[in-house]
Amino acid sequence: MDVSVRKKIIRFENGEKREQTAEVAVEYPLTIYVNKQELVTIVCTPEYLEDLIIGFLTSEGVIRGISDIDNIEIIEATGHAYVTANFVNQFNAKYRSKRYITSCCGKSRENFYFQSDASLLESYNETEIFIHPKQIFERMDEFENSSATFHQTGGVHNAGLTTPDGLICSRMDIGRHNALDKIYGYCLKNEIPVLDKIVIFSGRISSEILVKTAKLGSGIILSRSAPTELAINMAEELGITTVGFIRSGTMNVYTNGNRILMD
Amino acid sequence: MDVSVRKKIIRFENGEKREQTAEVAVEYPLTIYVNKQELVTIVCTPEYLEDLIIGFLTSEGVIRGISDIDNIEIIEATGHAYVTANFVNQFNAKYRSKRYITSCCGKSRENFYFQSDASLLESYNETEIFIHPKQIFERMDEFENSSATFHQTGGVHNAGLTTPDGLICSRMDIGRHNALDKIYGYCLKNEIPVLDKIVIFSGRISSEILVKTAKLGSGIILSRSAPTELAINMAEELGITTVGFIRSGTMNVYTNGNRILMD
Repeated sequence: MDVSVRKKIIRFENGEKREQTAEVAVEYPLTIYVNKQELVTIVCTPEYLEDLIIGFLTSEGVIRGISDIDNIEIIEATGHAYVTANFVNQFNAKYRSKRYITSCCGKSRENFYFQSDASLLESYNETEIFIHPKQIFERMDEFENSSATFHQTGGVHNAGLTTPDGLICSRMDIGRHNALDKIYGYCLKNEIPVLDKIVIFSGRISSEILVKTAKLGSGIILSRSAPTELAINMAEELGITTVGFIRSGTMNVYTNGNRILMD
Repeated sequence: MDVSVRKKIIRFENGEKREQTAEVAVEYPLTIYVNKQELVTIVCTPEYLEDLIIGFLTSEGVIRGISDIDNIEIIEATGHAYVTANFVNQFNAKYRSKRYITSCCGKSRENFYFQSDASLLESYNETEIFIHPKQIFERMDEFENSSATFHQTGGVHNAGLTTPDGLICSRMDIGRHNALDKIYGYCLKNEIPVLDKIVIFSGRISSEILVKTAKLGSGIILSRSAPTELAINMAEELGITTVGFIRSGTMNVYTNGNRILMD
């Protein structure tokens, strides 16, 4: 499917107008059914849909991983996906968007507001991955070059997975978290271990992006933009390194700076 | 409540590092109960919460407007809001995120994927509001100046309501649609008619933003960024004027250019 299309527009410039065309991003509603039950409609950029479905269902805790899925049938023309799963966490499927209530979860996770997040996440304090500032700037440049194609249509989000030495993959989506779910699905499908990898993201590190990073299993997240206060609190609780405002030789380290190697 | 806080960071600059503080955006989970039923958890910037609740419930079609609400109690410390309503659209409350199914709605709205959107929206083809290009550039400058305060924390979204001659109000939020819901709630509470007003937005015009604009009742939306294809299709169906990429004297008109007055 096309991820962008050309549309007729009227362009105003220097006080004059003329008809021309502009490339615009396709926004594609994908409705996911799990074992014939309608679960959710995700609005996304229509590529890597299978990865998106696998990543979304796993990061939301509806399934435990790719082995819980027997089959995925995607009807592109209508935007429907039918997942057959041999295991479904019914609680998470039903209460995905319901708030975390302390009494229903053994762990004390005061920064987390969804039950499935608080119960699924492990601590990353022991993760042994380190990176030099020089490598951070190089990887951000590499990441931005890899995702330059779509800038002309305005405002898509990019997520990538990298080692200190080189980018592994990057994905873009009109939805912030979809880009990360596509990465997650790709890793699950290709059995790529993430514990020694780094997440790199184009936009603000919100709590949701931090939670996705933790579920992916990465101990470091890098961004051109800033984290929110809640994301910082979660990162401290989970032991994740957050680095923001990475721009031409400068950056801010918000949490767990011990993984950044100073020369 | 604070909308931003200062956090200790390690700043890297010119190959050196030093400890300093940085302002970061607060991300606040607000769980809304309607008549004692938990409806949703919205993650937002914690200001204008009552407007946000009123705007959200109305634009989602859970209530029909402010007169359906008897009382709103907000417990700031825990992030819970208890709404007492004398009318609730149970279908929309329950199936807000379920996909529009043609057979359950009289109107043929092929571009809409949620039932409540397709059934609630009216056409704006008859809306008589016009604006000159010069006014568009002036309003965008005014809007951006009004929302400059928070730029340092990175990546909040701004929405505004304007006439051709001057900005009425602007709101910011870490969530795209929250900013518009705050505007909507403000208009409902203060009985400000929107049919002759213009929505102005900092980010991409997604289908969701277009739908919120239509529910607000405005016939024109202006943005610095671009609309998506789906938003363009919806705007054509509803008769809404979309103008994007408004930057220093240039802009793109995507739909219904008849409301832009050429000198």
